[in-house]
Amino acid sequence: MLPPRVVLGTAYYPEYLPRAVGDRIATDLDLMAAAGITAIRVGESVWSTWEPRDGVFDLEWILPVLDAAGERGIDVVLGTPTYAVPPWLQRAHPEIAAERPTGERVPWGIRQEVDFGQPAFRFHAERVIRRIVGRHRDHPAVIGYQVDNEPGVLLAHNSAAFSAFVARLRATYGDVDALNEAWGLTYWSHRLSDWSELWRPDGNSTPSYDLAWRRFQAERTTEFIGWQAELVRELRRPQQFVTTCLAYDRPAVADVPLTSRLDVAAGNIYVDVQDGLERPARPSRLEVGWIGRSVAELYLAADRVQGSRGEPFLVTETNATSIGGSHQNRPPYDGQLRQLAWGFVSRGARMVEYWHWHSIHHGAETFWGGILGHDLQPGRVYDEIAVIGDELARAGSSIVGLRPDVDVAVVWSVESEWALQFQPPLAHPGGAPDRSSYRMIVNAFYTGILDAGLRPGVLPIERLGNDPAALAAQYPTLVVTALYIASDQQLELLADYARAGGHLILGPRTAYADPDARPRPEPAPPRLSKAAGLHYQEYENLHDDLPVTGLPGHATRWAETLLIDDADPLAWYHHPGGSQRPIITTKRWGEGRVTYVGTVPDPVLAAALHRTSGVWSGLPEAVTALSAVNGVGERLWFVHNWSGEAVVVEAPGEMVDVLGGGLVGRVELGAWDVRVLREGAA
Amino acid sequence: MLPPRVVLGTAYYPEYLPRAVGDRIATDLDLMAAAGITAIRVGESVWSTWEPRDGVFDLEWILPVLDAAGERGIDVVLGTPTYAVPPWLQRAHPEIAAERPTGERVPWGIRQEVDFGQPAFRFHAERVIRRIVGRHRDHPAVIGYQVDNEPGVLLAHNSAAFSAFVARLRATYGDVDALNEAWGLTYWSHRLSDWSELWRPDGNSTPSYDLAWRRFQAERTTEFIGWQAELVRELRRPQQFVTTCLAYDRPAVADVPLTSRLDVAAGNIYVDVQDGLERPARPSRLEVGWIGRSVAELYLAADRVQGSRGEPFLVTETNATSIGGSHQNRPPYDGQLRQLAWGFVSRGARMVEYWHWHSIHHGAETFWGGILGHDLQPGRVYDEIAVIGDELARAGSSIVGLRPDVDVAVVWSVESEWALQFQPPLAHPGGAPDRSSYRMIVNAFYTGILDAGLRPGVLPIERLGNDPAALAAQYPTLVVTALYIASDQQLELLADYARAGGHLILGPRTAYADPDARPRPEPAPPRLSKAAGLHYQEYENLHDDLPVTGLPGHATRWAETLLIDDADPLAWYHHPGGSQRPIITTKRWGEGRVTYVGTVPDPVLAAALHRTSGVWSGLPEAVTALSAVNGVGERLWFVHNWSGEAVVVEAPGEMVDVLGGGLVGRVELGAWDVRVLREGAA
Amino acid sequence: MLPPRVVLGTAYYPEYLPRAVGDRIATDLDLMAAAGITAIRVGESVWSTWEPRDGVFDLEWILPVLDAAGERGIDVVLGTPTYAVPPWLQRAHPEIAAERPTGERVPWGIRQEVDFGQPAFRFHAERVIRRIVGRHRDHPAVIGYQVDNEPGVLLAHNSAAFSAFVARLRATYGDVDALNEAWGLTYWSHRLSDWSELWRPDGNSTPSYDLAWRRFQAERTTEFIGWQAELVRELRRPQQFVTTCLAYDRPAVADVPLTSRLDVAAGNIYVDVQDGLERPARPSRLEVGWIGRSVAELYLAADRVQGSRGEPFLVTETNATSIGGSHQNRPPYDGQLRQLAWGFVSRGARMVEYWHWHSIHHGAETFWGGILGHDLQPGRVYDEIAVIGDELARAGSSIVGLRPDVDVAVVWSVESEWALQFQPPLAHPGGAPDRSSYRMIVNAFYTGILDAGLRPGVLPIERLGNDPAALAAQYPTLVVTALYIASDQQLELLADYARAGGHLILGPRTAYADPDARPRPEPAPPRLSKAAGLHYQEYENLHDDLPVTGLPGHATRWAETLLIDDADPLAWYHHPGGSQRPIITTKRWGEGRVTYVGTVPDPVLAAALHRTSGVWSGLPEAVTALSAVNGVGERLWFVHNWSGEAVVVEAPGEMVDVLGGGLVGRVELGAWDVRVLREGAA
Repeated sequence: MLPPRVVLGTAYYPEYLPRAVGDRIATDLDLMAAAGITAIRVGESVWSTWEPRDGVFDLEWILPVLDAAGERGIDVVLGTPTYAVPPWLQRAHPEIAAERPTGERVPWGIRQEVDFGQPAFRFHAERVIRRIVGRHRDHPAVIGYQVDNEPGVLLAHNSAAFSAFVARLRATYGDVDALNEAWGLTYWSHRLSDWSELWRPDGNSTPSYDLAWRRFQAERTTEFIGWQAELVRELRRPQQFVTTCLAYDRPAVADVPLTSRLDVAAGNIYVDVQDGLERPARPSRLEVGWIGRSVAELYLAADRVQGSRGEPFLVTETNATSIGGSHQNRPPYDGQLRQLAWGFVSRGARMVEYWHWHSIHHGAETFWGGILGHDLQPGRVYDEIAVIGDELARAGSSIVGLRPDVDVAVVWSVESEWALQFQPPLAHPGGAPDRSSYRMIVNAFYTGILDAGLRPGVLPIERLGNDPAALAAQYPTLVVTALYIASDQQLELLADYARAGGHLILGPRTAYADPDARPRPEPAPPRLSKAAGLHYQEYENLHDDLPVTGLPGHATRWAETLLIDDADPLAWYHHPGGSQRPIITTKRWGEGRVTYVGTVPDPVLAAALHRTSGVWSGLPEAVTALSAVNGVGERLWFVHNWSGEAVVVEAPGEMVDVLGGGLVGRVELGAWDVRVLREGAA
Repeated sequence: MLPPRVVLGTAYYPEYLPRAVGDRIATDLDLMAAAGITAIRVGESVWSTWEPRDGVFDLEWILPVLDAAGERGIDVVLGTPTYAVPPWLQRAHPEIAAERPTGERVPWGIRQEVDFGQPAFRFHAERVIRRIVGRHRDHPAVIGYQVDNEPGVLLAHNSAAFSAFVARLRATYGDVDALNEAWGLTYWSHRLSDWSELWRPDGNSTPSYDLAWRRFQAERTTEFIGWQAELVRELRRPQQFVTTCLAYDRPAVADVPLTSRLDVAAGNIYVDVQDGLERPARPSRLEVGWIGRSVAELYLAADRVQGSRGEPFLVTETNATSIGGSHQNRPPYDGQLRQLAWGFVSRGARMVEYWHWHSIHHGAETFWGGILGHDLQPGRVYDEIAVIGDELARAGSSIVGLRPDVDVAVVWSVESEWALQFQPPLAHPGGAPDRSSYRMIVNAFYTGILDAGLRPGVLPIERLGNDPAALAAQYPTLVVTALYIASDQQLELLADYARAGGHLILGPRTAYADPDARPRPEPAPPRLSKAAGLHYQEYENLHDDLPVTGLPGHATRWAETLLIDDADPLAWYHHPGGSQRPIITTKRWGEGRVTYVGTVPDPVLAAALHRTSGVWSGLPEAVTALSAVNGVGERLWFVHNWSGEAVVVEAPGEMVDVLGGGLVGRVELGAWDVRVLREGAA
Repeated sequence: MLPPRVVLGTAYYPEYLPRAVGDRIATDLDLMAAAGITAIRVGESVWSTWEPRDGVFDLEWILPVLDAAGERGIDVVLGTPTYAVPPWLQRAHPEIAAERPTGERVPWGIRQEVDFGQPAFRFHAERVIRRIVGRHRDHPAVIGYQVDNEPGVLLAHNSAAFSAFVARLRATYGDVDALNEAWGLTYWSHRLSDWSELWRPDGNSTPSYDLAWRRFQAERTTEFIGWQAELVRELRRPQQFVTTCLAYDRPAVADVPLTSRLDVAAGNIYVDVQDGLERPARPSRLEVGWIGRSVAELYLAADRVQGSRGEPFLVTETNATSIGGSHQNRPPYDGQLRQLAWGFVSRGARMVEYWHWHSIHHGAETFWGGILGHDLQPGRVYDEIAVIGDELARAGSSIVGLRPDVDVAVVWSVESEWALQFQPPLAHPGGAPDRSSYRMIVNAFYTGILDAGLRPGVLPIERLGNDPAALAAQYPTLVVTALYIASDQQLELLADYARAGGHLILGPRTAYADPDARPRPEPAPPRLSKAAGLHYQEYENLHDDLPVTGLPGHATRWAETLLIDDADPLAWYHHPGGSQRPIITTKRWGEGRVTYVGTVPDPVLAAALHRTSGVWSGLPEAVTALSAVNGVGERLWFVHNWSGEAVVVEAPGEMVDVLGGGLVGRVELGAWDVRVLREGAA
């Protein structure tokens, strides 16, 4: 359904421009075409333009944009505008406002304020979707649809949602006694005698409840997006695709089930550039936020989108320049946009789409910068994007449908992330709970893979499969850390993966709780203790980073008191209570191996966990070399210099310079540079 | 009513265990018996188990526990479950939810969400209490009752509470004119012309109102606990005691009146261990929290429970291991649990009861660790508690009913604490008000007593008595600091205490306001200026610690500009405005002495205030030696080494090693060790 | 209307004193007279004393105060008590409570809780004003009136206010299409089809809306104060003045239109003393707060009051000692009060009035210190104020009606301040938006003027006029920075000012947006790019201060990427992305000059912008020398030593020592000293 090239795209909102600017459609699209931009996303934010009054539609305003795009060979992704409801709808149906907490309506005035389960919302949403898609599906420029936008932004506490939650629990557990037992409701007199007694989420302190509530909310989002996708599929032309753009950190999103309802996974990936792209990352860059803060997070974010369906994917939004509030201005250094674009491509991106063409002159996102700024003139950013456009064109179909090579995959568990947001193991320096504990821990291990010169990947736990041998064949090493929520079957599969020859690296908190978020009443790590050759009864937070012996680096933030049964210790730390204690161990297990890491490793220690070296040897710290295989079986290498100083690296053999042409062995990279190489003869 | 030994106890909740674990009652009680645990607390958290539906009771479920305990000689404290109301009650009577603020109900979902003054709550609470106590009072294992749990957690703003508050004011002040005058309501047009005009507490900014509101709320808590105690007393067997477990930092608790309604005072004392128990304390350990953060706070907390009734007491809850949220994991070093237990005993504890037997597998307190962890297996913690059990058994009745020897007592005023929460004198480094000012100041002086090698105590102001000579005979030195709220009679008594031979050490803010929280319009320190031989008109916050001359140490956070009338200055500091200023003075007053401290002393300066040395000389900083006298008049010494390094100290004479046996003069202590010695010949 | 001397005044509240203190009126007024206090402010806080019940008035209670003042030649400013509504009024008319947010009433219990647009409030306010003024206007001691007190404390969200806002928009924009276009409401489906669809402010995210809402709220405050002023003018005697006391940082105040409704501008100026008055200011002192934190802020605050009407003004409140919460105690060093008083006089203050005579013994402001403290005894502060009283008396009419000499004026824009509170360009170190960005930037430039030894002033943008030549004649240099909101006409005038011979110094963010808060779609700085000889497309936040070359000092917090067209660069910085970039430029423009500063200069760089030196040469950093011209054309110099070390400075010629007498050339200043000199022969 996608064009046979990597698409360079941009969101385009000519309708936002002040009237005084005049009609810029031709100007803008000419500039795009000149820069090698081959697709635009349109129309997803302006329901009140499509339908200025209840039942009164204006479907023609977009036509000049579609026509002008088509004339220049620029493809169009058409959006459904349901994430921003018009004032007339909110006024006529105040009940569509989401409640957060119960009974307190989110005031209108931004976007995504509604409970998308409300019938009045659904009725109007369906009508406008049918009109827009019905009117424009036959336009030849339209190649696909984006339904809604970054769904799952809030947990709706409205009565209908709560009633559906109770019904869901009843379907799952059957009767309240089963729920009482599963959630441990004897505690603090929480036992229910009837479903009607379930308390509202506002005052909840029960972890099992919270996890069920998060699951339920994510299922609602999946259902909503699935409903829209089916609606569009009824109407679209066969070659047109349907997707939505996901922000993976939204509280009510489970990416694997959600993207299974779409034709292709698509993620919005914003990255904090400038020194954020330096390698090795500065310590402050290990903190996580809504925006990627390091090179490792850039790849991790892309690998998550790749992982959602285990396929090539779209980057539906990324930053052309500074992104964020009026006080967050960080334009990229020269070269960094190129690095980002090739970084996405290397993970399998079929599209790299900037948000957005020009900075806008009003509204909440006034200072989310565009390819053009407020002056609407091409400048430094436009010029660099034109370079990217040229390079993608030259690379042509050779970079389409890339499948990344993975030395080590980290297992991602959305449910564990939710559970550890409610009960985080880590503390901030001042003592407050660190609700980003899950991401902090997983990022620490992922960073180590990259720092070890290996090729990382992400495997969502939903795609673990049920064949341990196949898993071991596909992934020589799996990192499973902070997997707080796991089923018996999943844990058994992981142990069998190692037995079948895989190297299972286990990190802290793994397997600790069951799918109801209850710690398992058995030796920890539950179900994996035997394979790991150890158990622990105690664990603690570390206030200071502690150096380890046996391996380089430090234990940080967390330490489990490992009681070794039959494992080999690899690293120790000095406990302030007096003794030398093992903190990393390893053990042969069947055909494979289980390595146990009882702490959050700093980057040096995280890299030291991997005793195999990468394909490229002697890489400077600033350089990454990652590979992927294209549709015709060629392996491409993407070599980035994440620094302001030029470097030279030796390739593991002569390769073809995909963009520059010719064979290279010695690869010279300038400041903030990237090279794309193909293995084998030209 | 209590057994003739120090009770080692634990809260025990077999009803919380997942069913899959099976029946562990025999296993658990066998393990307890083996560890020397002689009492359990049961049943106080599970109203919805006792009464699964309105008026439908299950009183038998606890019987196996009572029987199994009785068979093993383990005593039982039975709880009334009123702090955790069942869902069916909250659903039938939503009006019982506490409002905080006015009109906004605390959502159900944790515990203690209710306004315990609500008739619907009282009706159901009385019924369930009568059923539980009536059913089990005759069980031979039951030695006493705990009513409710940590009461006074919130200030209920419900209409009925507010109406009662107005009635209370009317009874106190008679008419609104008296209130207008007493509270200074001319200010900002707050004068009332009728009682109906009194504003709700939500917007209150009047200090006098706030203090009255706090007093009223504490009285409500006292009334509620007293009501429960009377109810139980109607039903209990004569030898059974009634208490509740107090968290002393709850906002609506006044411990002296409250515990006067009980048979014995009982407190929950949690202590942050590991380096928190190092002496001298690290500077960060001087900050206060809900948990004791230093050795000084451990003793201060125990002394407060001792002080509530001036009698031996119970420690109803203390930590066996980490306590707190999922991100607060600090298991004790080897030896520290033993130190804590003997620390409590040395202050007169008749019971040391751990919360709780095993970590639980669900609910808000999943990571509040038990003697057994989630794996339900004995481990390091269990083993250390078994050592304690053995030692307590060996010490037998010799450690029962200890009365601590006190060299210096600090006067505690709950009302001053309340008033200084509303109008704190101290600021945090960033400039925000430090609402813990009262505790920070009192802790500073208490720490100094301990650091001077002296034996501290706590005297609640309600138990000051009215005989200055008796007071001077009992307490050679009294520290009175931050006593912001005091009556004329109390201030007169304090001056007379010094005149009668006592050494009165006055600290900042003392006597500043009257019982309506109004600064007194007279020279400061009001009513004590003449005895102190000085007055002051100005005072200021210090941003930096300032070294003093004349004594070692620093003035911190606060300085009064002392204008000396006829006192002798002991210490000075250099004021940044230019001059050398006295900050500590002393003066003979009658048979005694008044020392005035116009600052918050750092630990060194706080210790230097005491010019007498302790009974044990040459103690290392890490060591404390405190004493108490038992029921037969023997003096026991408790010598703790609060460090990870072994030490040797010289006793002031040969003593009997109570646990080890034999006479000792040179006392060797290992890391985190404690010795119990008895004066005089074996 | 004002007496022919600089008035030394104090707010006086004998009605607040505890009855037990007795009648102190004679005592207090004798003490005032002895200290040279010549005016008191009375009665503005006690509506419930004036009118204890609805319609029942007590107008006589103030008479003893008026009489006693009159007998001693002390003038009286009588207040209207509308800022503190009585409990009976709030109870009878709960609807007068301000809502913040919509539907949530501010609870009663402090003051200024009401929406002053409510009819029930207006009815009662008018009645009590008429009674008070009518009763006392003829008292000979009364010289003027203060209406209300520090108005504009909140943004009322009540329905009536919102309805009036919609009506105001309709009047401004005509129809919703114009509003849709002006505010860019196509964005995120915010287009209105009818006025009734406008959303409430609570959820608003549209910058244009926010600015309109702030404008509207400030207009309401102006209307309210104007209404009161007209009411009083109906009743007053001709010689009596009407003013209000403004806190300039209140969210709903626009000082220029508001003070145009009064007879004289009056401001409350509190200053954090002690090391806050040291020069050069410590870096932490550059942060802004509700209280002035540096010498520069003291002058800036006074210049803002002067600027409101461009006339001499009143300081209606200033601190005699510590001001603030119970934890904020910072009494002045000896001499600092004298420095503050003469600082105010030097800017044209006709009155310096302390808040307040004595500390009060209850209420929210218990620890806002008075000239007398809680003990009601004269002390150090009283003594220093008596010195001030003596000096003002000796200076007599020579210091009345001073017009400050201004070398460099900064342009102040209240609307830009509002807009940059909503969309601040600067970030705090931790990354949070710095909502004080406007003040931080303007303060930086103002500080530079003072540090360069020049004489600063403030020119509100409303008083820019329309004659560029006249402007250039009056102000040789204008600093225009952070002028985010400006009209085309204003920008044209500024360019013409330079063309006419002025030196226009432009700082960051200037001219960026139009009066609807929309960034202008044209090269930046919009409308000034040609005059500045440069443009920029990109800008960024700086995390670290960066040294510049070409001039001394550092660029801080912000940098624009200047693309020079035809300007001369003056300073450069090294961009971390790799290049050397210009950051300050200058260009001849017509008869004058435009200097462009693309950053927030640190004090050293801000001072270096001014290449002319001051009249006094060789001044130590601690010393300021500012001048003003009195009503008979004499120039007075005010020379302050803002340090604890004595200094000697050389005057630019022999001058008369106004207070000491005699001619001086060498001026000796003690610690925290000030001298007043008159140019020319004695």
